[in-house]
Amino acid sequence: MAKVKVGVAGYGVIGQRLADGVALQGDMELVGVADVAPTLSVRALKQKGMPYKMFNVSPENKSMEEAGIPVSGSFEDLVQSVDIMLDSSPGGVGAKNKEIYKKYNKKAVFQGGEKNEVADVFFHGYANYEMGVGQQFLKLTSCNTTGLIRAVDMMDRAAGLEKVAITIIRRVADPGDYHRGLTNALQLEKAPSHQALDLMTIMPHIPCTGILVHTPVTHGHIITVLATPKKKIEKKDIWEMANEHPRIMPVRVADGFLGNASLFRYARDLGNPRGDMYEIALWEESIVKSGDDIMFAINIPQESVVIPENIDAIRAAMKMQTDRLEGVAMTNKYLNLL
Amino acid sequence: MAKVKVGVAGYGVIGQRLADGVALQGDMELVGVADVAPTLSVRALKQKGMPYKMFNVSPENKSMEEAGIPVSGSFEDLVQSVDIMLDSSPGGVGAKNKEIYKKYNKKAVFQGGEKNEVADVFFHGYANYEMGVGQQFLKLTSCNTTGLIRAVDMMDRAAGLEKVAITIIRRVADPGDYHRGLTNALQLEKAPSHQALDLMTIMPHIPCTGILVHTPVTHGHIITVLATPKKKIEKKDIWEMANEHPRIMPVRVADGFLGNASLFRYARDLGNPRGDMYEIALWEESIVKSGDDIMFAINIPQESVVIPENIDAIRAAMKMQTDRLEGVAMTNKYLNLL
Amino acid sequence: MAKVKVGVAGYGVIGQRLADGVALQGDMELVGVADVAPTLSVRALKQKGMPYKMFNVSPENKSMEEAGIPVSGSFEDLVQSVDIMLDSSPGGVGAKNKEIYKKYNKKAVFQGGEKNEVADVFFHGYANYEMGVGQQFLKLTSCNTTGLIRAVDMMDRAAGLEKVAITIIRRVADPGDYHRGLTNALQLEKAPSHQALDLMTIMPHIPCTGILVHTPVTHGHIITVLATPKKKIEKKDIWEMANEHPRIMPVRVADGFLGNASLFRYARDLGNPRGDMYEIALWEESIVKSGDDIMFAINIPQESVVIPENIDAIRAAMKMQTDRLEGVAMTNKYLNLL
Amino acid sequence: MAKVKVGVAGYGVIGQRLADGVALQGDMELVGVADVAPTLSVRALKQKGMPYKMFNVSPENKSMEEAGIPVSGSFEDLVQSVDIMLDSSPGGVGAKNKEIYKKYNKKAVFQGGEKNEVADVFFHGYANYEMGVGQQFLKLTSCNTTGLIRAVDMMDRAAGLEKVAITIIRRVADPGDYHRGLTNALQLEKAPSHQALDLMTIMPHIPCTGILVHTPVTHGHIITVLATPKKKIEKKDIWEMANEHPRIMPVRVADGFLGNASLFRYARDLGNPRGDMYEIALWEESIVKSGDDIMFAINIPQESVVIPENIDAIRAAMKMQTDRLEGVAMTNKYLNLL
Repeated sequence: MAKVKVGVAGYGVIGQRLADGVALQGDMELVGVADVAPTLSVRALKQKGMPYKMFNVSPENKSMEEAGIPVSGSFEDLVQSVDIMLDSSPGGVGAKNKEIYKKYNKKAVFQGGEKNEVADVFFHGYANYEMGVGQQFLKLTSCNTTGLIRAVDMMDRAAGLEKVAITIIRRVADPGDYHRGLTNALQLEKAPSHQALDLMTIMPHIPCTGILVHTPVTHGHIITVLATPKKKIEKKDIWEMANEHPRIMPVRVADGFLGNASLFRYARDLGNPRGDMYEIALWEESIVKSGDDIMFAINIPQESVVIPENIDAIRAAMKMQTDRLEGVAMTNKYLNLL
Repeated sequence: MAKVKVGVAGYGVIGQRLADGVALQGDMELVGVADVAPTLSVRALKQKGMPYKMFNVSPENKSMEEAGIPVSGSFEDLVQSVDIMLDSSPGGVGAKNKEIYKKYNKKAVFQGGEKNEVADVFFHGYANYEMGVGQQFLKLTSCNTTGLIRAVDMMDRAAGLEKVAITIIRRVADPGDYHRGLTNALQLEKAPSHQALDLMTIMPHIPCTGILVHTPVTHGHIITVLATPKKKIEKKDIWEMANEHPRIMPVRVADGFLGNASLFRYARDLGNPRGDMYEIALWEESIVKSGDDIMFAINIPQESVVIPENIDAIRAAMKMQTDRLEGVAMTNKYLNLL
Repeated sequence: MAKVKVGVAGYGVIGQRLADGVALQGDMELVGVADVAPTLSVRALKQKGMPYKMFNVSPENKSMEEAGIPVSGSFEDLVQSVDIMLDSSPGGVGAKNKEIYKKYNKKAVFQGGEKNEVADVFFHGYANYEMGVGQQFLKLTSCNTTGLIRAVDMMDRAAGLEKVAITIIRRVADPGDYHRGLTNALQLEKAPSHQALDLMTIMPHIPCTGILVHTPVTHGHIITVLATPKKKIEKKDIWEMANEHPRIMPVRVADGFLGNASLFRYARDLGNPRGDMYEIALWEESIVKSGDDIMFAINIPQESVVIPENIDAIRAAMKMQTDRLEGVAMTNKYLNLL
Repeated sequence: MAKVKVGVAGYGVIGQRLADGVALQGDMELVGVADVAPTLSVRALKQKGMPYKMFNVSPENKSMEEAGIPVSGSFEDLVQSVDIMLDSSPGGVGAKNKEIYKKYNKKAVFQGGEKNEVADVFFHGYANYEMGVGQQFLKLTSCNTTGLIRAVDMMDRAAGLEKVAITIIRRVADPGDYHRGLTNALQLEKAPSHQALDLMTIMPHIPCTGILVHTPVTHGHIITVLATPKKKIEKKDIWEMANEHPRIMPVRVADGFLGNASLFRYARDLGNPRGDMYEIALWEESIVKSGDDIMFAINIPQESVVIPENIDAIRAAMKMQTDRLEGVAMTNKYLNLL
């Protein structure tokens, strides 16, 4: 069977990881990536010997060429060569790129920074895979929502959920960011947080609300989840479910996983490229009960958590697998998520 | 009527503020404070001209005298001169000081760092004032618990509460701390947090659980509170109650109160000594409903929040007021909490 | 003698402190302050009972009035009522305000954020007071430069300086700032830093260069100064000079002054409004020699350090004192800098 | 020729990287690593399938075995099987291990945390390789000193240096550290910093002094270096030398290298394991002149910078190469430093 041809628009924090994730899929071919300027990530690509072809989003802008980056063609060249685009352009740019995708009748997957209207379906591999099957334009949930839904969907399929309330303790910048930051301050966002609203768009049967607070760190969000199950769930049930979920990593404070920085260190020591993790982590010592409600804390590695669900989206849109569990299983296999 | 004579043990972050708070009470006399070394706070006291008399906790240790700090006597001298001691010594030292208080048959109020067994009653001015009336040894709740109980007690008296679940986003160090800190990391504590357990000690009729995460900031904790009321409460009810509570400051993101750092800045601009606030803040834009549950966020100014309840404790222990509302009202009057 | 009438444009971080500083001068009258919106600082002014009159910079913008802030008139009303304006408007706005000052033939002192061309003289109370005497428009050095020049001028007057090289370890945001920040990153600026260039504008006889690095903290810059003296200076000479300088606070690590956060804590414990300090600090344990060069570290409290030199500028411009030492001495007296 | 057999004591931040570095050398064999407890790093080793054999430093402590870590023998077993040990145990433990090395007549290289007395020679690959040739016990310089000496040695060999003064802007913790940290504070150490003293031990002909300030970041130190050359050096000379040095990476702010966090991001994007870099970086835009003195800023990646010089130390001690340039060149070749 011919491999599905994939392109990536935007070679930034997310785009690089999308490209790496696609390149690992045995049934996909990464045709190339596109960007507009010789950022550090693009310079690193060159330093590595251009394992991915680079296409120029703005051919009239020659800054990449001037920096000595080999350019393989224009953005339209790339779009014409693929079956589907993963668009991780800065927020709002994807909507403009969509015109090009339509022009060449290509499929595309947009990221959380775009408006929902850009897509035919707001997608999450585990929660609503079927909705994406055969669609032309899909939009992925953002990093927090993607990770959160993994845990909520896991409980919902096991016991049914009446409602969910979350507190998001959010990292404010990525490692290396100099264009945004917070210094010695916590910042409250107006509630309910968009992640709670997004969850309800994906899972309309589960009322959800929540509060988000920004914190001055760079390595991962921590979310506390309070879920009201329809059937009784015990603490050990959550722990066992987490142990069985390919995209959830069960961890213990007692083993040295003291917080988000421990997870980043562990992923670096594992030799994962960039110290990335595809899994959310769930702490055993965080699981408590509030009456019959269940409460626990998860860690969201914001740079890489959405990669698996993006790959799922390709599978669904291209009808590579039409069944939810078959689709996510194939992604998991190639990403080594067991 | 003779003023109640008060001494303060430990002139650190809390002790200084206790001394200032007592000095503001028209019906109390601050006899003096006690410490053991010429810390920056002790040096600042001298620089200000010794508005409070200093007593030496370890008379054999002459480091204060050597640094030129005027010393008015020994710790035992201070204890003998007072009716009641506020003990803000480092955790564990209070238990040792208790022997001296017993020797001279004096009353004392301990802080959250001591074990519960040190005291006859675990005390909160608003929640269980009556329990402290006439007691010899009281222990105050810690900073987070003190602020949290203000909000929980407010709702409980209005509507009754079935249960409470909290997420504590905690500052990891005070401004000026060099002996502890966290750098670019969130740290999870084993759940349930002690604050949830402490709340149940003070308010045994309200089941409470919660998760605590340390964050690398210095100016105040943010707690999200999810409460299940027995009677229906609307968002506006919470806001109105907060507006009427003398120790809760209702704030709006829209007015510029973006987080804990805004509150510190506002208190500094108000000219409050040290930029302190006695009130917790409650954000209007944080109030949401999860089914019939109510959820919101509060800010805990960790250095100063416990001062009013400590003063309440003096009033209760010394039977200055035997009625809860009369007791807290007198504290509020002298602290200008209206 | 009639008091000199002063107005302050911009009631932000600097403007508030300028107003407080002017209000302390026995020979000046603070006519009022001007701003454009109900910021937290303006709300705090109202909460304190409007000790200073507020004038509206943009009378067509009614947001202050809508927030219940009593407004005493327009910006032009304020300008007409004063002898001299201290302009701490956001960078660039001062240049526009200058047209109003010229229209009414008033003097003005601008802050470091304006371009040098806005003023007749670039001013520092200790280094070039005489240059400001009788001038209409003065511009103050920025916070780092102001503090740095105090130390450099002190050495230069004692021993003559051949050259200076500095490393500025800069705080990236003020307490309460949410519009800028840096998270887990050091940021290098292109060298030489503007502070080195500004020093040479004020003291053209001393070649100066330097490197500036931003750090994610809020409470004060630390500058290392390496000076090449013309006459030999020993470590103890620096320490003695620092002890005698009214605007330099000599501190010791051994006494607990471990860094910028210790100084902020000390100032808070002193009861200084907002925890401010007018003095730079100089650490005894930082003084070392590199051959005949002398090297040491100073702390710059960025929010308040420029206040004394601004007051000096009023004295010079208004010819209240025409002699340098008489001018700064009068400022020091009223600011209690001994 | 038989490969030199190497063991690593302590599988922490440094030890892991030493093991990886040795494993890359074509003429060395990594026999194994030793540790005492199932830290995250040891757990990661197991998760990766034990590419390195683990030996138990405290055979009576079975915590590694209990955590399921395969253990290949005792620490003494490891020592007996090697020609030379790289000892990256916690500070002070190396001195105790030395007794075991002596017992079996093995060579060893200690890290900066040990006292100088532990070794026969205090070593730096570029600066004093010859001193280490054939020695039994070597001690490496610490991370800052190692990186600093690269730059100082480079200038000294080109132009001779009369003296050096440094300001070290130090990261306070490594990514993942929870046992130490600093929150919103800069901390000054007593001057001169040990790095300046250590430099003079390695290069006794160059007087050096300096000041060190801790900052709350995790990804690399920045040092400003002010050097007084004997022969005139221009800015472009420094830049050209940096371009030619295999262990110095010349970078530009204009290319996006804004600070230490940019370098970490770049190394992650390069795919370097753990996002590590062996090179110090030197910024073109930081190079300035102060009279005839030259000043610039370098970045020290604290976790990995000492690896090359440790490998050099093996080469010297084992007389694999007796010539300085041949020794460092072989290390550079295997570490891909060109």
